[in-house]
Amino acid sequence: MVTILRIGHRYNRDKRITSHLALVARALGVRKMIIAGEKDLKLKDSINKVSDSWGGGFNLEFVLYDEWKPIIEKWKIKGMKIIHLTMYGENLSTFEKSDTFVELRKQPNNVAIILGGEKVPGKVFQYANWNVSITNQPHSEVGSLAIFLDHFIVNALKTSFSNPKKQIIPSLEGKKNYR
Amino acid sequence: MVTILRIGHRYNRDKRITSHLALVARALGVRKMIIAGEKDLKLKDSINKVSDSWGGGFNLEFVLYDEWKPIIEKWKIKGMKIIHLTMYGENLSTFEKSDTFVELRKQPNNVAIILGGEKVPGKVFQYANWNVSITNQPHSEVGSLAIFLDHFIVNALKTSFSNPKKQIIPSLEGKKNYR
Repeated sequence: MVTILRIGHRYNRDKRITSHLALVARALGVRKMIIAGEKDLKLKDSINKVSDSWGGGFNLEFVLYDEWKPIIEKWKIKGMKIIHLTMYGENLSTFEKSDTFVELRKQPNNVAIILGGEKVPGKVFQYANWNVSITNQPHSEVGSLAIFLDHFIVNALKTSFSNPKKQIIPSLEGKKNYR
Repeated sequence: MVTILRIGHRYNRDKRITSHLALVARALGVRKMIIAGEKDLKLKDSINKVSDSWGGGFNLEFVLYDEWKPIIEKWKIKGMKIIHLTMYGENLSTFEKSDTFVELRKQPNNVAIILGGEKVPGKVFQYANWNVSITNQPHSEVGSLAIFLDHFIVNALKTSFSNPKKQIIPSLEGKKNYR
């Protein structure tokens, strides 16, 4: 499965956005997300609690901000393919029609997705094999990640989770069936 | 085009999440969003600035929290169709295969999307014609809205905006072309 690297996290300002990023990643089947920024044990704890209740395993790892660079460099040496989500990139609706995209979907273990924060170091655009945008408009990184994963991960909306304590029985009428 | 009603906004706690909801809605082609909660002129101003620079018109309207109810009731009388995004609803991957979904996509002006906040009044589940979930897992409302709109709005990722002052020329190499 793909790995996500989020560059930048400030405890106070970003806690809800980063938490939403992790929830999106987990819900759509990602199992590992690295955050380069301020260590936030409260966030880690809250995501772990979600996995405890709703199943699956989700590994949220904090590293120092400057670690983003050696992490990507190591990935490059290992031959991992790097997709950077940015409003300046090629529109997903174009990129997803390429043979490249079709091939990448078949090898998600070999793909890393980079999400910038407020300011993205210029080098990230160069390290990335592909810079991809979701609409080329000012956007939410949470919304962009959700749409990208939905297109990239096969059957992302139907991800199942092992050993859940809680589970919802979906219903058009809403909060009816709940165990 | 669909109208979005967000129930709940607290100035301090929710500013970034609500702002991301508005950015997602705008980027995917929505032109009207109503927020029932604390009036937030700073948020309104920042979204207006985005439209000023990047084009299109986006109408963000604040109403008092309790207004959510009369607004929905008026919509019901007018025959508008209401979709409530909630983790308890039917999975989008099932719902989107129904004739209903296909029909609704053809009449977006007649559709309203409700997004709950922290606590959703029980009545909302009943008012909704359809309660729809994006994965039935704890999720981000920003991510859920993004995926729903991407599936519901025809060519959402290719939305164009009138009279932009700024525009990106998409590029796989990233921040190269920019005018």
